[in-house]
Amino acid sequence: MTFTTARRMDLIKPNAVGELLRFGSDPAIISFAGGYPDATLFPREALAEVYRQAIAEEGQSSLQYTVSNGPEKLREQVAGRLVEQGIQCSADDVLMLQGSQQGLDLVAKLLVNPGDVVITESPTFLGAPIAFDPCEPRYRSVAMDDDGMDMDQLEEVLKSEPNIKFIYTIPDFQNPTGLCLSLPRRRRLIELANQYNCVVLEDTAYREVRFTGETLPTLKSMDTEGRVILLGSFSKILAPGLRLGYAVAERGFIEQLGLLKLAADTQCSTVNMAAVSLYLSRFDINAHIATLQGNYLRKKNLMLDAIRQHFPQDVRCTDPQGGLFTWLTFPDGFDTEAFMRRRAVPEAKVAFVPGASFFAEAPEHNHARFNFSCQSDDKILAGIAALGLALKSEMAMGA
Amino acid sequence: MTFTTARRMDLIKPNAVGELLRFGSDPAIISFAGGYPDATLFPREALAEVYRQAIAEEGQSSLQYTVSNGPEKLREQVAGRLVEQGIQCSADDVLMLQGSQQGLDLVAKLLVNPGDVVITESPTFLGAPIAFDPCEPRYRSVAMDDDGMDMDQLEEVLKSEPNIKFIYTIPDFQNPTGLCLSLPRRRRLIELANQYNCVVLEDTAYREVRFTGETLPTLKSMDTEGRVILLGSFSKILAPGLRLGYAVAERGFIEQLGLLKLAADTQCSTVNMAAVSLYLSRFDINAHIATLQGNYLRKKNLMLDAIRQHFPQDVRCTDPQGGLFTWLTFPDGFDTEAFMRRRAVPEAKVAFVPGASFFAEAPEHNHARFNFSCQSDDKILAGIAALGLALKSEMAMGA
Repeated sequence: MTFTTARRMDLIKPNAVGELLRFGSDPAIISFAGGYPDATLFPREALAEVYRQAIAEEGQSSLQYTVSNGPEKLREQVAGRLVEQGIQCSADDVLMLQGSQQGLDLVAKLLVNPGDVVITESPTFLGAPIAFDPCEPRYRSVAMDDDGMDMDQLEEVLKSEPNIKFIYTIPDFQNPTGLCLSLPRRRRLIELANQYNCVVLEDTAYREVRFTGETLPTLKSMDTEGRVILLGSFSKILAPGLRLGYAVAERGFIEQLGLLKLAADTQCSTVNMAAVSLYLSRFDINAHIATLQGNYLRKKNLMLDAIRQHFPQDVRCTDPQGGLFTWLTFPDGFDTEAFMRRRAVPEAKVAFVPGASFFAEAPEHNHARFNFSCQSDDKILAGIAALGLALKSEMAMGA
Repeated sequence: MTFTTARRMDLIKPNAVGELLRFGSDPAIISFAGGYPDATLFPREALAEVYRQAIAEEGQSSLQYTVSNGPEKLREQVAGRLVEQGIQCSADDVLMLQGSQQGLDLVAKLLVNPGDVVITESPTFLGAPIAFDPCEPRYRSVAMDDDGMDMDQLEEVLKSEPNIKFIYTIPDFQNPTGLCLSLPRRRRLIELANQYNCVVLEDTAYREVRFTGETLPTLKSMDTEGRVILLGSFSKILAPGLRLGYAVAERGFIEQLGLLKLAADTQCSTVNMAAVSLYLSRFDINAHIATLQGNYLRKKNLMLDAIRQHFPQDVRCTDPQGGLFTWLTFPDGFDTEAFMRRRAVPEAKVAFVPGASFFAEAPEHNHARFNFSCQSDDKILAGIAALGLALKSEMAMGA
C-alpha cells in the first residue's frame, strides 16, 4: 500500500544516530563515533549479583508491572543523590525515564506546539532535535565559546522571539563540545529565563563524569522559580543498556510528564529499576564513578596527545574536564563528512561523527566529535595515527 | 512559574490507568483491576539464569548501547515465532519496542495529524486512546458483539469519514471484553481496509494466552497489501517488568517507526533484550505458555463460577477462551464507578476497572473489567464473594 504519513514525518529523516550505532557494532572499524562508555568498566559482578537478587528473591514484584513514575524507593535514592548536589527535591519530584532521551521527547510533547521556538546551543546534542522534531518546533541556536552558551546572543534571541518554550542546554561537558557553562553564565542564564519566563531543560547526562577541575552547581540548584527541568541518566555512570534516566522538576511538571510517560510506554523496566535500586543500596556508586573518572582522564589525555602528534597543526580540539567527547575544528572549507566517507572509514577504518549533525540551524561542516571513553588505549593510539595519515593525504590533495 | 502547555495537553488528563497501577501495589486491596499476569508463574529460575549469562558472561555487549531496532538475533527469533503462526516476515520486518504500548504511541505519531480519524472498537483498551491523544485524533468507535467488531457498522464509518488513518483492533481476547473477532469478520475487515485504503493496527498482546477453542489466523497473516501493523508483547507470556514488545510490518513502516523509536528513547534495554534472546534459545517458551494457559483457564472458571454464585442474576459476564479479562454488564442505570468508590473499595476491599474508561466516544457506565489471571484462587473466591455482598446491598438500596 501507499500510505500518507502525518505532517510531522516530513521532518523525520534518517540521521546520523542510527548510523553511529551501526558503526559501534562493526568490529572492523575503530569507532570514536558513539557516546559509548568503556564497556570493560561496567560493574558486571555487582550487576550480576543485584539482578540475581532482583529476580531470584524478589521476582514476583520485580518482573511485574509497577507504578508508572517508578518505584518510590528508587525515586528516593535518585532524589537523595541530587540533594547531596544541592538540589531541593524528594521522591515526588522524580520521574523515572527510559534514558534521559525520553525526557527530551516528553518535554517537547508537554510544551511545544508546531511553530513554537526551542533554543539550543550551537552545536547541540544530535539526539535532541530528533526528539523535538515530532512536535514541529522552530529552532533558534546560540553560539558557544569556551565558557559555554553566549549569554548576550541568548538575550538577543529571547528578546526577538515571542513564542519561546524552552532553552535546551547541557551545562556540563556538553555533547558534542565537552565544554562547560561557566558559573557567571549559569547565573545569567537563570536570570534571563526568569526575566523572559521560559522553561530551562538542563541535560546533565555527563555531569558526574568530571575528572578534573571544580564541580559547578546545576542550573536546577539555582532555580528559585521552578522553571528548570533537570534530566539525568545512569547510562554514563552505570550502563547504557539499562536504559534508565530521570527527570527532576516541580511537581506540576512531573505530574504532566508522568501522564505522557504512562501513555508512551506505561513505565520503565521494573527489573532494571529494581536492580539499580539494589545496586545503589548495596554498592558504592561514587567509588565506581571515581574509577571511571581516572580512566577517562587517562584516555582523554592519550587521545589529545595523539591528535597533537599525528594531526596537522591547524586542527584544533577542546580539552574537556569531563564527559566523553572532544570537539575538533578543522580549517575552513574542510568537510569532515566527505572525509569520513572517502577516507576515514574505507582507508583508516576509523569512524567519528561529522560535526554538521550537531547544528539545529545552519550546519558547519569543518567539525567532528570524537569519543575518547569507549575504545582501548591501543585502539585510541592506532585509530588516531591512522586517521592522521588519512588526514594528511586528504589535506595534501585539497591543497 | 506558570507555564503554558502545548495544545495537545488539553486532552491529557489523569486517567484510570495510573490509579490501577496504584491499586495493584496496595496489599490491603484485592485488585482485579490491572492487566497483571500471575506473578507466581514467572519463570524466575530460568530468567535468573539468562540474566546471569547476559551480564556475567556477555556484559560488555549486553550492558552497552545496541542498534536501535534491537539486536538482529532477537528480531530473528521474534520473526521465527511469527512465521510459525503463518506470518511472512523476517528480522528486518521487526522493531523491538518498550512494550506494545510504545507501538501505539509511535503508530499515531507516524500517521495522525490533528483532526484525523482513528477507528477503535467500542469498548477498547484504555491505554490506546491515551497513547493516541497527543496526536489529537478524532475517534470513531464501532460496537462489538460476541463475534467482535461489527463489520457493517465499520463499513458505515469507513464510508462516512474521509480522513481515516487506521483501524485499531485487538482481535484475540480483546481488552476489555475478552472476545475474539470471528474468522469471517477477520476476512471482511481486511477487505474493507483494502477497499477504503486504511492501515490496520492489530494488537496481539493476549493472543498466545488461548486456553480453549481454536486459534484464529492473525489479520497480518491475511494481509496481501502490507497494510497491517502487528503489535506483540512478551508481557503476558513472559513478564511485563521486562517491557519488551515488538511491531511487525512492511519495511517502509518499520523504517519510519524505527526513526521515531530512536528519537523517543534510543532503544529498548539491551540487557533485557539479551536476556529474552537467551531465554528463547535455551528454554521452551511454548511449554511455559502452556502452563500459563492451564492456570488461567482454571482461574477464569473459578471467577465465572463465583460470579454466577454470588452476583445478582442480571449481571452478565463474557466467557473468554483466552486472555486475562472478563467483561461484566450490569443492569441499565447501574454506575460501576460510583459502586467502586462507594462500596467495592472501601467496604469489600476489592478493585476492578469501571467500564466507562474503555470508551473512546460515548462512555457506558454499567460495565466493568475483571482480571482473573493475577490473584490467587483464594483471593478470587474471597474477592468475588465480598463484592457479591456489596453489590446486593447497593442494588437493594437502589431499588
